[in-house]
Amino acid sequence: MITADVIKSLQSSDAVFVSGSTEAIAQKVLPPEQADSESLVFVSKPHQLEQALKAQATIIVAHKSLALPTDSKSTFFSTHHVQMAMAAILPLFDGKMNRFNQETKIHPSAFVHPSAHLGQNVSVGPFAVIGEHARIGDGSTIGSHVVIECYAQIGAHTILHPQVFIGAYCELGAHCEIHPHTTIGADGFAFAQTKEGQHKKIPQIGKVILGDNVELGANCAVDRAALTETRIGSGTKMDNFCHVAHNVIIGENNVMAAGFKIAGSSTIGSNCMFGGDAAISDHVNICDKVIIAGRSGVTSDIPQPGAYGGYPIEPLRESLKTLANLSQLTRIRKELARVVKHLGLKEE
Amino acid sequence: MITADVIKSLQSSDAVFVSGSTEAIAQKVLPPEQADSESLVFVSKPHQLEQALKAQATIIVAHKSLALPTDSKSTFFSTHHVQMAMAAILPLFDGKMNRFNQETKIHPSAFVHPSAHLGQNVSVGPFAVIGEHARIGDGSTIGSHVVIECYAQIGAHTILHPQVFIGAYCELGAHCEIHPHTTIGADGFAFAQTKEGQHKKIPQIGKVILGDNVELGANCAVDRAALTETRIGSGTKMDNFCHVAHNVIIGENNVMAAGFKIAGSSTIGSNCMFGGDAAISDHVNICDKVIIAGRSGVTSDIPQPGAYGGYPIEPLRESLKTLANLSQLTRIRKELARVVKHLGLKEE
Amino acid sequence: MITADVIKSLQSSDAVFVSGSTEAIAQKVLPPEQADSESLVFVSKPHQLEQALKAQATIIVAHKSLALPTDSKSTFFSTHHVQMAMAAILPLFDGKMNRFNQETKIHPSAFVHPSAHLGQNVSVGPFAVIGEHARIGDGSTIGSHVVIECYAQIGAHTILHPQVFIGAYCELGAHCEIHPHTTIGADGFAFAQTKEGQHKKIPQIGKVILGDNVELGANCAVDRAALTETRIGSGTKMDNFCHVAHNVIIGENNVMAAGFKIAGSSTIGSNCMFGGDAAISDHVNICDKVIIAGRSGVTSDIPQPGAYGGYPIEPLRESLKTLANLSQLTRIRKELARVVKHLGLKEE
Repeated sequence: MITADVIKSLQSSDAVFVSGSTEAIAQKVLPPEQADSESLVFVSKPHQLEQALKAQATIIVAHKSLALPTDSKSTFFSTHHVQMAMAAILPLFDGKMNRFNQETKIHPSAFVHPSAHLGQNVSVGPFAVIGEHARIGDGSTIGSHVVIECYAQIGAHTILHPQVFIGAYCELGAHCEIHPHTTIGADGFAFAQTKEGQHKKIPQIGKVILGDNVELGANCAVDRAALTETRIGSGTKMDNFCHVAHNVIIGENNVMAAGFKIAGSSTIGSNCMFGGDAAISDHVNICDKVIIAGRSGVTSDIPQPGAYGGYPIEPLRESLKTLANLSQLTRIRKELARVVKHLGLKEE
Repeated sequence: MITADVIKSLQSSDAVFVSGSTEAIAQKVLPPEQADSESLVFVSKPHQLEQALKAQATIIVAHKSLALPTDSKSTFFSTHHVQMAMAAILPLFDGKMNRFNQETKIHPSAFVHPSAHLGQNVSVGPFAVIGEHARIGDGSTIGSHVVIECYAQIGAHTILHPQVFIGAYCELGAHCEIHPHTTIGADGFAFAQTKEGQHKKIPQIGKVILGDNVELGANCAVDRAALTETRIGSGTKMDNFCHVAHNVIIGENNVMAAGFKIAGSSTIGSNCMFGGDAAISDHVNICDKVIIAGRSGVTSDIPQPGAYGGYPIEPLRESLKTLANLSQLTRIRKELARVVKHLGLKEE
Repeated sequence: MITADVIKSLQSSDAVFVSGSTEAIAQKVLPPEQADSESLVFVSKPHQLEQALKAQATIIVAHKSLALPTDSKSTFFSTHHVQMAMAAILPLFDGKMNRFNQETKIHPSAFVHPSAHLGQNVSVGPFAVIGEHARIGDGSTIGSHVVIECYAQIGAHTILHPQVFIGAYCELGAHCEIHPHTTIGADGFAFAQTKEGQHKKIPQIGKVILGDNVELGANCAVDRAALTETRIGSGTKMDNFCHVAHNVIIGENNVMAAGFKIAGSSTIGSNCMFGGDAAISDHVNICDKVIIAGRSGVTSDIPQPGAYGGYPIEPLRESLKTLANLSQLTRIRKELARVVKHLGLKEE
């Protein structure tokens, strides 16, 4: 239950008060097509604004390009970027931290090793395990059933959702968020093959380092390095089911959709985007500002910024043509056979 | 250890008693090629019947098309559909619920919030966590290490295997079964990009709703909606490693093989089937009664029932031809070069 | 902190002492390009040896093909195979077992059923659950939050990392290592469809059997068999996110990279290798000594050893040509159109 006044008092440049009562109360947030009179609604297109007005939505946050009526009972905010307005306003409606409510900040059932160091205002859920000499920064939230192994470090104001695994010696920055069942710091996959064809394990004695503001979805896995560090830079966000192999170095502010996989020792610059199920081979280097379409397979370096797609990888425009022509392949084969026959050429 | 009499007393139309002693005892169930004299065997083909007879299997459940001998010591049941017979009879041999045996229905080590509501005959395993105001229906089984966050609701007779995660406010219907390490209700993947290229999180304040009789395999992830609901309809079954993004709406009685992925805000009707690793882009709508081959990629709406495959998607017959012609591509390229040379055409 | 003397005393044929002080002390292991004077360094190429010498690395393990200087203060070992030397020496630097340190071998918070049998020197972490009649072999390590269901068996000297799930009746051999969030023994995916289009569950009453020295990465899933056994043979290693469906039989000493998937009832011989995201259809048989490239899809038997790739699968050489020609597809289509026009052929 949020009033327009509370939103106004955010003084956000992404949601500027326009008109209406600042005492308007929104019970919830709904998409335009489901709007009702108790809801706050974000609208970016004229028909969405109509829907919200018709439903008499109590608060409407509209893109600045839309002409707002002057005879409406709704309260209006204007934004240059609807998604930025959502990022600014939705935290007011987000009860996420209530999920971690408990009578005591450190749940009595949690196992915290005496040598572990917990900062100020750390919350630790039921049955969490915090190992020897682990360090947890101020204001961080450790969900129930999280396992943090020895000497691992968690920065300030980081959220580990329930059932996350943080391996020994791994380091997470501040303001990270890691979703359930994600594994950080399992062994990299490395074996030496004997003459007899057996595979002897090469111990993985490195670690994983995550910068600040890194978010990893549910059921991801980031392997520890063989000797040194696997790194994911600050501001990089990964969706569910992403796989990062040992020794990988990833820069800042990248976005990876679900099922992204990167094999050992590859590197990615900063400000890149990867579609779902994109896969990067081992020992490949991708520069800054690269966009890779979903399902692409990158097997060699990409030294130039730009958009790419396909497998093998091509500039995005070319890869879209290749994809479109794939459906022509049967016709191409038949037509070529016709040409060969027409010309009386022999089969080779 | 099950007698033919017990099977007969099921009075199932999927396994009809034919002949033999109703006191025959099966210690186990084996496939025809491994049958022995203590086993119940399901047979659908003549050579399987021979194998079962040769092994003197104590109980044989045979497809009705098979001619059963009259001089055998085995006890015979007949079925119109061997898999339906398995679905009817195998529960007698399934010790699954024994896995959840414990001295007290609510294990003393579990943490159940005082405000949570548990129905009749609910079983809660060691170290399970049931949050504030969560509700668990009658006869449900909550495995060890399951985490159910605040205000989540679990229907009656639902089984949550160990280490499942159910996020705050999510709702599961009755008779659902969720396998280990599956995450229901992690955040959807949504960020607003600033001018500086940083990604600000858009809080995900919606939830996940599962109908009745939904089964999800191990290590799946279903994200909560941005504002409203991500839905999976009654009777839909998913294999391991399936990914359902935020705002997705899936109908009833669908089957998804392992590695199925569907991106944000897409919809699927009812009675569809998806092969392994099939992937659906965001904002795509698929109607009822669609079959999608494994590894396919669906990037636009499918408004007509039918079978489809490939990437880009084609009617299944066409996609199989395209696939077959892919192996001809090298030959096609060479033959075309020969034609061009033959004609004296210049390269363009 | 390891001395050259300790390495020498391994008497490993994979790392033979050559020269220098046996009192040399390595504080850590670094890659050549990051070497410093306190580090042990493995080098296989001349420029790496130069890097290590320049940094005055305290211990250098060099491939036997490299000419070692006689005027260096470093201590030298020689190896015929650098990775085998890593497999031999790195265990000295691997503090993995320290992650499982605790005051008592069986953590008091663990729940061990009175009927479970634990061998000598078994370590059980906080909140682990070991079910009725489960058996744990001598010297095994059960991480925190591991769930081992009833009647499951774990061989000697096996490591289960935290949050692993081992289902009822499943059996693991000796010296296995299973990484976090891996599920062994969830139900296979099997339903019988009713006339009305509903899917009735076929109970999965089989189990999973792993041989000795099997390693499974993080977030894998191996399903129990419908009736009998899903098997992974001794010495087989899988990376993260691998999926093994019910009734699959896999031989010995195979290596599967991340995202490998194999559908129901398929079989794989021994000494095979599978690249990342390789997928095997159901009821397919692959013989010994087969190499399958990453992203390949195998939909029919492979009865001959060799290297293969692509989808559809081809001998590797052919599949690489097909892949290369894919990028030519647009040009091929245009050129063919030009030929058809040149010849004055009508469209068909």
